[in-house]
Amino acid sequence: MPELRKDPVLGRWIIIATERSKRPTDFVVEEFKTTGGFCPLCPGNEKTTPREVLAYGRDPNLPANSPGWQLRVVPNKYPALVIEGELEKHGEGLYDRMNGIGAHEVVIESPRHEDRFTFLPHDQMVLVFRAFRNRIHDLSRDHRFRYVMVFKNYGRAAGASLEHSHSQLVALPILPRMVISELDGSRSYFKYKDRCVFCDIIRQEAQQDTRVVCQNDYFVTLTPFAPRSPFEMWILPRHHSSSYADQDDQSLSALADIFSETMRRLDACIANVPYNFVLHTQPLGSQPLEYYHWHFEIVPKLTSIAGFEWGTGFYINPMPPEDTCRYLREAL
Amino acid sequence: MPELRKDPVLGRWIIIATERSKRPTDFVVEEFKTTGGFCPLCPGNEKTTPREVLAYGRDPNLPANSPGWQLRVVPNKYPALVIEGELEKHGEGLYDRMNGIGAHEVVIESPRHEDRFTFLPHDQMVLVFRAFRNRIHDLSRDHRFRYVMVFKNYGRAAGASLEHSHSQLVALPILPRMVISELDGSRSYFKYKDRCVFCDIIRQEAQQDTRVVCQNDYFVTLTPFAPRSPFEMWILPRHHSSSYADQDDQSLSALADIFSETMRRLDACIANVPYNFVLHTQPLGSQPLEYYHWHFEIVPKLTSIAGFEWGTGFYINPMPPEDTCRYLREAL
Repeated sequence: MPELRKDPVLGRWIIIATERSKRPTDFVVEEFKTTGGFCPLCPGNEKTTPREVLAYGRDPNLPANSPGWQLRVVPNKYPALVIEGELEKHGEGLYDRMNGIGAHEVVIESPRHEDRFTFLPHDQMVLVFRAFRNRIHDLSRDHRFRYVMVFKNYGRAAGASLEHSHSQLVALPILPRMVISELDGSRSYFKYKDRCVFCDIIRQEAQQDTRVVCQNDYFVTLTPFAPRSPFEMWILPRHHSSSYADQDDQSLSALADIFSETMRRLDACIANVPYNFVLHTQPLGSQPLEYYHWHFEIVPKLTSIAGFEWGTGFYINPMPPEDTCRYLREAL
Repeated sequence: MPELRKDPVLGRWIIIATERSKRPTDFVVEEFKTTGGFCPLCPGNEKTTPREVLAYGRDPNLPANSPGWQLRVVPNKYPALVIEGELEKHGEGLYDRMNGIGAHEVVIESPRHEDRFTFLPHDQMVLVFRAFRNRIHDLSRDHRFRYVMVFKNYGRAAGASLEHSHSQLVALPILPRMVISELDGSRSYFKYKDRCVFCDIIRQEAQQDTRVVCQNDYFVTLTPFAPRSPFEMWILPRHHSSSYADQDDQSLSALADIFSETMRRLDACIANVPYNFVLHTQPLGSQPLEYYHWHFEIVPKLTSIAGFEWGTGFYINPMPPEDTCRYLREAL
């Protein structure tokens, strides 16, 4: 019997389609290789990107935009939004529009072209999470921006066009509606229960112990109750916190540990699977929120968004998260 | 300068990313061919599908599930939801779930394996639209159902797994959140203006004349102001109507005409492009609504849903709908 499940924060329904049930080996994954040749993100090619906004690991005596870095953040050469200008909100009859002002940056996660995020050494992965924190802090000083969206696309099917390991940041002049929905859902729950919904999820999951993939002192990885995709995973801090940007170095080190373990478990189940991850954190310029809980959501690209999903906003998932969790636990 | 545009019904923002602007020839489209061999939807193979729920064009002296039909509707062999059983809504701590009860049907649009929806003869296309109406009427008698979602996936990239031309219907026990959002948005506008937002859109588009692709006495095809994808199009009845199921034969004949012209214009711009279309109509069992307006939305699969879209609910579209409209107008 298929099952309908509701995400307790967003109210989003998903269908666990048991008539279409699958095992990890049923998913065919194409290896992600670009044709080789010139890579604009490799050391030595710094002049082919826009001028860097952050670099870690380079000898301070060397000039900016030269080799010798361990991690580098540069503006996107083909940005979805541009940094210069004013919003100039205006109407056109019943339509609303504004200029596409924002920042769109690329985090080059390693100088080594062949490195994959999943297998980065601990110290290198820590640099990635520090770069996210550093850039959110820096972008929050621009008062035109209300949110910084941090995400990664890995694999062509998940929207990546460059092979060299990288993630992205987009600073936005408006709160995106997914963020608004998540904040609204968490706020409603808090009003009713006086507790953070994510803290309650973590507590219930620890008791049930059927969807906990792994954990350490600071973080826990779950397969969520109502996942959009097989092998969807959430990484949440075990203690309440609404802001990624407020994490200290010790927390980011523990985050690198669990992220690395989580991604290696995923890779052991489906080698080289394309995926997206998205950081969910509070809007810029707000005080710590008692009703919201920052976290990462990792969504492998294993099913397609088709007419049914467009029309309903539902997702059809052929694999219950309890099964996914068992595969992931046994993977390493 | 990129531009942010807001859909006037849903409040969904999209980014027209001019820095990534494209022409129709920039889109690479893979031809949709399955490997050949056995087709369960072809005449002669009726016994390999679940028993038909509707057939048009077969001699009434011939038995059901035999050849001789012009159009056939059968339950999906691998349904996302199943017809037998009760919902049995229940909780599990803070989570909600229910049984996956619903109907999932396949409309086999032609007996000829090589036919494509876009190029169906007029009379054959009329049968498709009549089948949608017939099935909505029939499914509305089951009081467990609140909505019938009608959609089509064409091409592998858009989620189709069978080559033989077909569309799908899913009857759902709950109102999907996309439908709720659209109804809520339309209702808010009506409360404020005492007019249907879609009627206002049609009026404004006729005046501006930059996003009207084609029209006939009954229908108009627009490229919407805030499209999720290049070449997104909406087909709307020019006179107010909230329910597809209430359309008479004359209206469905005019719908077949404009749908056919619309799809042929699209194919002339990007041959064989994968796409989804979705029927947007009022929920089952409600009286005609003065604030809602039924229509079809056609979304070509030309961009990928990646981390940014997952996180924000925004879409990045490299082509303004005014440009798309010009290409489409000049196409035939």
